[in-house]
Amino acid sequence: LSLPEYKEHQHIRYNPLRDDWVLVSAHRMKRPWQGQVEKPSEENIPRHDLTNPLCPGALRAGGEINPDYEGTFLFENDFPALQPDAPDPGPSEHPLLQAKSARGVCQVMCFHPWSDVTLPLMSSPEVRAVIDKLTEIMKDLGATYPWVQIFENKGAMMGCSNPHPHCQIWASNFLPNEAQIEDRTQRAYLREHGIPMLVEYGRLEEERKERLVLANEHWLVLVPYWAVWPFQTLLLPRRHVTRLQDLTNEERDSLVSIMKRLLCKYDNMFEISFPYSMGWHGAPTGCHLSEDCSHWQLHAHYFPPLLRSATVRKFMVGYEMLGQAQRDLTAEQAAERLRNIPEEHYKLRDQ
Amino acid sequence: LSLPEYKEHQHIRYNPLRDDWVLVSAHRMKRPWQGQVEKPSEENIPRHDLTNPLCPGALRAGGEINPDYEGTFLFENDFPALQPDAPDPGPSEHPLLQAKSARGVCQVMCFHPWSDVTLPLMSSPEVRAVIDKLTEIMKDLGATYPWVQIFENKGAMMGCSNPHPHCQIWASNFLPNEAQIEDRTQRAYLREHGIPMLVEYGRLEEERKERLVLANEHWLVLVPYWAVWPFQTLLLPRRHVTRLQDLTNEERDSLVSIMKRLLCKYDNMFEISFPYSMGWHGAPTGCHLSEDCSHWQLHAHYFPPLLRSATVRKFMVGYEMLGQAQRDLTAEQAAERLRNIPEEHYKLRDQ
Ligand SMILES: O=P(O)(O)O[C@H]1O[C@H](CO)[C@@H](O)[C@H](O)[C@H]1O
Ligand SMILES: O=P(O)(O)O[C@H]1O[C@H](CO)[C@@H](O)[C@H](O)[C@H]1O
Repeated sequence: LSLPEYKEHQHIRYNPLRDDWVLVSAHRMKRPWQGQVEKPSEENIPRHDLTNPLCPGALRAGGEINPDYEGTFLFENDFPALQPDAPDPGPSEHPLLQAKSARGVCQVMCFHPWSDVTLPLMSSPEVRAVIDKLTEIMKDLGATYPWVQIFENKGAMMGCSNPHPHCQIWASNFLPNEAQIEDRTQRAYLREHGIPMLVEYGRLEEERKERLVLANEHWLVLVPYWAVWPFQTLLLPRRHVTRLQDLTNEERDSLVSIMKRLLCKYDNMFEISFPYSMGWHGAPTGCHLSEDCSHWQLHAHYFPPLLRSATVRKFMVGYEMLGQAQRDLTAEQAAERLRNIPEEHYKLRDQ
Repeated sequence: LSLPEYKEHQHIRYNPLRDDWVLVSAHRMKRPWQGQVEKPSEENIPRHDLTNPLCPGALRAGGEINPDYEGTFLFENDFPALQPDAPDPGPSEHPLLQAKSARGVCQVMCFHPWSDVTLPLMSSPEVRAVIDKLTEIMKDLGATYPWVQIFENKGAMMGCSNPHPHCQIWASNFLPNEAQIEDRTQRAYLREHGIPMLVEYGRLEEERKERLVLANEHWLVLVPYWAVWPFQTLLLPRRHVTRLQDLTNEERDSLVSIMKRLLCKYDNMFEISFPYSMGWHGAPTGCHLSEDCSHWQLHAHYFPPLLRSATVRKFMVGYEMLGQAQRDLTAEQAAERLRNIPEEHYKLRDQ
């Protein structure tokens, strides 16, 4: 594949899903790094630790004792950022001092009773149980809340305060910023082009292949053209699916398989448990369930911070915070690197 | 001052400058922290180190040797994310694959010949020399480039790869995302309300006082109502000033004074050299110099990551990346805390 010349030089790329731009400075990977070096991620996590509030049988901050759970385990966050009740700020006194009510729930879901496993090291039926439970949560909370955000912070570098495999679910009575932006851009795209943005995008990338990382019967994983994080990926169903809870039985099985393959590649890149934040975006729920949401395509974003090695990350600071995101390798280079990484997990290789 | 009740509970607040929202979970500061602990910032930095490429007389990566500079020192970044030349990507082949040319320059400015000082520890004439030099750079680069972003990444936590006191200047042939957003929101505000947004906002906060941190004859420092980072501040001139290069001689002196006072408070909070990213935003330049930019008000943003102590930071991860920013204390609580911190730098206290 011969890439157009501009990709070897700096340029800006448009992110149609966020309606903003990223600066791509392909030549900048040569820069030496003298800055902060991250602690390598903890590799000796005890399988079971009664002082860890996520373990079966452990005491949580709220005073509750966890059951001796054997599969997934869902509970209310003991320090929720969103609670079902809070006073309404009422009308704003000034256009520059606007507040609105925020109500919701924050839940935590453990993936497995053991602290020393992660999704790529879990069996397919175990990961399938996670997907099934998430689907159930989406249905339950989505019945009333307009937005249910599932996300996983993995690794200390990503602010994760507990090594036990888990994700979080924050449901709110409002559409958060990112949901509002993606709703607006996808709606406009469908109106203008007659096809949902991410359905079209999946087809395009499947055809071009240069940014494709993985594909199976029902799913695609690619480094989006507008990726910001060095090895950011987008996980997309091939079929037009608006919400997680609309996946068929086969699509769920096939999701388990592609997630495990992707996460093995990530872990194998630097032979560590790869840190990231990831999360699902689908059509809004609650009062939006009865609206036409066909502009939405379900997808998951993976945002991993590492750049050069297990200990050198990309910082989104100064220019990124005050100007716009900047990256040091192209999406095509990242995709090629990810494609070339074997899928068998490094920890299982020599067993 | 009695605050409305909603401020003690969770709510969302509107950021009129970015046209987005922040989730304020005032009750969440009680949460224990078991996650990543940052390395305390290096306190034993050698004053002069010939292996540090920012020191006078040192060899830089590009092969140049720094002069024996005695004040500020400006040079071209040896690993620039923006260069004056790059091929034009040409017309886009698909609406989902849009690229544009990016041209510009990246400069680095050392504040002082010594590696072991920071702005709050420098003398007023020394800081004034920094402001004068930045103004000169804004004029020079602003003559041709539409956007000149001055920013300082301070501390390893903020991706700063060198402890020597310095800032960066990235000038580009395009308006970065943040510039575009602030241009749009300020333009709309002036049109609708007949007064520039941040001129009105400064007056409002001066009157209310609950979010004010510092004030002098020409400047205000406040924790904006919509602050995202725990101790984020906004530095505003009292007069309507569109660009850094429009400040009067007195305003520059007064800027030196208020910056030093703010940075002493920051350092005193946890008795460390306080990490942050900061930068200046003013009306666009280059081809925009001849346009009406009266909707703009010059300002500096300070984004410091620390939350609870010298080693516990706020992470903008999972929910923040996929939903929206969330904070654990109110802007009013942060402002009160900052107001109560003494202004004499802890390192100078016992001398
Ligand atoms: O140029 P520096 O200081 O080496 O690099 C730092 O600032 C840049 C501009 O904010 C960022 O793009 C880098 O990720 C960060 O590490
Ligand atoms: O809830 P946790 O895992 O303790 O906290 C982590 O995730 C949250 C949601 O992304 C963030 O707001 C916190 O800053 C982060 O440390």
